[in-house]
Amino acid sequence: MEWKVLKSRYISRDKPWFTARVDTVKLPNGEVLENYYVLEYPDWVTVIAITEEDQFVFIEQYRHAYGVTAFELSAGVIDEDDESPLVAGQRELLEETGFGGGQWSHLTNLCANPGTHTNTVHTYVAKGVQKIEEQSLDRTEDINVRLFSREEVLQMIKKDELVQALHVAALLKYFHFSA
Amino acid sequence: MEWKVLKSRYISRDKPWFTARVDTVKLPNGEVLENYYVLEYPDWVTVIAITEEDQFVFIEQYRHAYGVTAFELSAGVIDEDDESPLVAGQRELLEETGFGGGQWSHLTNLCANPGTHTNTVHTYVAKGVQKIEEQSLDRTEDINVRLFSREEVLQMIKKDELVQALHVAALLKYFHFSA
Repeated sequence: MEWKVLKSRYISRDKPWFTARVDTVKLPNGEVLENYYVLEYPDWVTVIAITEEDQFVFIEQYRHAYGVTAFELSAGVIDEDDESPLVAGQRELLEETGFGGGQWSHLTNLCANPGTHTNTVHTYVAKGVQKIEEQSLDRTEDINVRLFSREEVLQMIKKDELVQALHVAALLKYFHFSA
Repeated sequence: MEWKVLKSRYISRDKPWFTARVDTVKLPNGEVLENYYVLEYPDWVTVIAITEEDQFVFIEQYRHAYGVTAFELSAGVIDEDDESPLVAGQRELLEETGFGGGQWSHLTNLCANPGTHTNTVHTYVAKGVQKIEEQSLDRTEDINVRLFSREEVLQMIKKDELVQALHVAALLKYFHFSA
């Protein structure tokens, strides 16, 4: 049952990167909980892109919060002027990797953490993608593209070399239920 | 390669719930990026608890940010006075569900989002747990305990009924590599 918001104050409003508020809420049992923090993000999109040679398209970039250079799937914010999550995914994959085309299907919707995040992460599988142009990066993006076989992806997951839970969840859902 | 922090300012310091800062950083290519937001959390722990009858212990609670009542694994913050992530997991499971005992092993370390989160989520598998006492909840916690079979857990994952990516990733790692 929903909690009633008694009071709400924004700590930061910097769309789409960081909008945070702190609520005072009343629970169904009557208890009042002060200082419940909520992160308001636009929805995000993640893409499992696979070439015709069954190679998985990954990006490698430095992640400043966690302090690691990590392999991840292509992913990003769904912009207000993206027509749909699918179109956002196609845009992100092309910008970050130069790969495009292929047959796209929706795989799963997940949340980074329902306790703190308001947004949904839409994940698509794109089969048969090809390198169709050069990367188109912002001046502050430094992204390497790497291709891995299915077995290499599974080994990276098994060895905790892929740390981004949203991507591990999506990839294992694909391997377990669809592939 | 690491980014150099030129400036850093805290937006919120409310440990352990919400410590957020905004950095100005210099990239290896010389570019300066302003307003990079970092969420500093203590490490978290998640527990896949399985009874001797092969039933998986889940909790059901309202998640205010995402606005859903959802099934999740038992999980929580590793407190400063927890001896280890393992002990924190045993404490959380007992408090939230009343289940304890069993054989515990480490399964995986993940991150909710390396782009924004500083903390690691340590996940353990506890096999052969039993109900050994009543739940011990805070006045603002309203948690139902539910047991599911392995097949039911897989179906919930397949149908996107488990939305918490950290838990989906951990469960599928367990099913895929260990179970």
